[in-house]
Amino acid sequence: MADQQARTGEDRRPTQIPVIRWEEPPEGPVLVLLDQTRLPAEEVELVCTDAPALVEAIRSLAVRGAPLLGIAGAYGVALAAARGFDVAEAARALEEARPTAVNLSVGVRRAQAAHQEALAATGDPTAGAVAALAAARALHQEDAVASTRMAAHGLALLDELLPGGGHRILTHCNSGSLVSGGEGTAFAVTLAAHRAGRLRRLWVDETRPLLQGARLTAYEAARSGMAYTLLTDNAAGSLFAAGEVDAVLIGADRIAADGSVANKVGSYPLAVLARYHHVPFIVVAPVTTVDPATADGASIEVEQRPGFEVTELSAPQVPVAGAGGGIPVAPLGTQAYNPAFDVTPPELITAVVTEEGVVSPVTAEALAELCAGQGRTAA
Amino acid sequence: MADQQARTGEDRRPTQIPVIRWEEPPEGPVLVLLDQTRLPAEEVELVCTDAPALVEAIRSLAVRGAPLLGIAGAYGVALAAARGFDVAEAARALEEARPTAVNLSVGVRRAQAAHQEALAATGDPTAGAVAALAAARALHQEDAVASTRMAAHGLALLDELLPGGGHRILTHCNSGSLVSGGEGTAFAVTLAAHRAGRLRRLWVDETRPLLQGARLTAYEAARSGMAYTLLTDNAAGSLFAAGEVDAVLIGADRIAADGSVANKVGSYPLAVLARYHHVPFIVVAPVTTVDPATADGASIEVEQRPGFEVTELSAPQVPVAGAGGGIPVAPLGTQAYNPAFDVTPPELITAVVTEEGVVSPVTAEALAELCAGQGRTAA
Repeated sequence: MADQQARTGEDRRPTQIPVIRWEEPPEGPVLVLLDQTRLPAEEVELVCTDAPALVEAIRSLAVRGAPLLGIAGAYGVALAAARGFDVAEAARALEEARPTAVNLSVGVRRAQAAHQEALAATGDPTAGAVAALAAARALHQEDAVASTRMAAHGLALLDELLPGGGHRILTHCNSGSLVSGGEGTAFAVTLAAHRAGRLRRLWVDETRPLLQGARLTAYEAARSGMAYTLLTDNAAGSLFAAGEVDAVLIGADRIAADGSVANKVGSYPLAVLARYHHVPFIVVAPVTTVDPATADGASIEVEQRPGFEVTELSAPQVPVAGAGGGIPVAPLGTQAYNPAFDVTPPELITAVVTEEGVVSPVTAEALAELCAGQGRTAA
Repeated sequence: MADQQARTGEDRRPTQIPVIRWEEPPEGPVLVLLDQTRLPAEEVELVCTDAPALVEAIRSLAVRGAPLLGIAGAYGVALAAARGFDVAEAARALEEARPTAVNLSVGVRRAQAAHQEALAATGDPTAGAVAALAAARALHQEDAVASTRMAAHGLALLDELLPGGGHRILTHCNSGSLVSGGEGTAFAVTLAAHRAGRLRRLWVDETRPLLQGARLTAYEAARSGMAYTLLTDNAAGSLFAAGEVDAVLIGADRIAADGSVANKVGSYPLAVLARYHHVPFIVVAPVTTVDPATADGASIEVEQRPGFEVTELSAPQVPVAGAGGGIPVAPLGTQAYNPAFDVTPPELITAVVTEEGVVSPVTAEALAELCAGQGRTAA
């Protein structure tokens, strides 16, 4: 069933190969990833035979994006179980691979709980492994369904906020089928608007330092036939000033209990610009992204990444190499401030769109209610 | 005298060679530029023997920065005159090389006026050429003096706005000795603060797409021994949110009569962030940057540059080449929005620091008075 879902999904994907898939060749199960660091230059697969390989793939951003990290984490636990490794150790390493996206730990824990439960009930490691894999597949499938529902809710919200259609949407980073079991979060909403003939233009922030907008969102937009235009992150201000942005749509890596949203660095400046220009700022994320255990924005751990991502330019084909493997653009010894995410407070967010519906205004009460509906609380 | 000034200036420069110099080898006068597109990888000189070569150097940004463009434009007219080319034609081509920085046309017209006057008075082309060169040298020297005075006024303003010192300054693009006959505009102020022991840190925006912050400002900061940190433009929001920015200092390419400031794209989002966080936003520019003939922000022509600056990564050492000579990072055929500048309205600007003093609040009246003091009006 989950397999079928995945197969159906492939037809709609912007790449020739799925972003993540479980395979069982004779020599043992593997997790096959589309290496996103090589896009859009080439579509290369990365085969993980154990959890440490997956941890490395997560750290290097070969696999990335909050919902997909959850799915990958769950499959990683299933992989450790199927290959007879220490499941608790694998789970811990996977959870710690990156700190900000809560979905990663939600996915890991779900597969680990299924594994433990089956093991406790049967005493059979194979049953534990089967249960972990079933949990990963269920999460994968649920994410595809959630994606479809977020797209529907998001489009309805856009139509309500911006009557008349012809939406000009600005997005940051990448939130399409490359981060999801389905068509994604924020990008799925723009895709729905595009299919409904109500998207006039998608403005794509390039998203420094790793250019997920230029490399991945432009790629997905081009394949879907959308009218899109790429821009440097700092050119968004000129678009707002010219009245060329009707709404900002972004994904999220973690939503704190108070409604603060951690997302790719550069999201917060867009929220401030959107407020200054009276433009709706909309966050699209599955309910699993809401973390009742994180009280507020200040409690969100923001991943600090290596300075060479800023001091060197990287592209897969580049042969000239600095310390980080790229081309140095700043003087040697330059120190860089390189947070991977920033935090937008709830008062700057018009709405949070989830698969369960739209939260607007964004309040702690409304988010708590949403999580309670899925049986998740801070305790 | 001007030559001496230039030579004295060399000692304080961050590079081994001056950014611009006039030479008279036996085969005829030339204008020698430091090719800024090659920094910080290497210090390479570019020799212009006629105005078209200089126009090309201006377009490719080998020579750049509002005050330096004025100086280069004036020397370009002198070069055309000294080599016996059509001075009016050269002046027109130089003025049109880039549209936004008003200093370019101010410099060109000053040298051209000196040329015409001398020619009319003497009927001798040599006298015309000598007068044009004298005008260029005078502008070069005046700019160095203006730079020193802006630094003093700017530092006094910082000390007034931020008592106690320990300034943490955020800057965008490059505004140091690489853009000036002296030590620059905004960067000259931070340098004065550094020398006075009152600069805690300079936050350097990398300044996409051409990375003038990473390549040039970091270079000047490193050579001057400042504590500086590089960041992607979109990470500035996190610094503001964390209370890590005490003031924003930027240069300007044109200041309209109403006080609207055109500067490198990305300046306006910083102004909005600064306002949201109650942080002073300060523009440092010589009076020649104020253009009484440009009524307001909407009247400023903003240069649109080629999309490949965004869709491809460029660095001098890169051998792999796309259509724009760089490494493609976005899908083929991707369209990019690439304005070189943006416009910040006067209500977001705390002060404009000039060599004649500080204008705050920024009003049309105060700017008109400033220009009248230098005998420049809209008429």
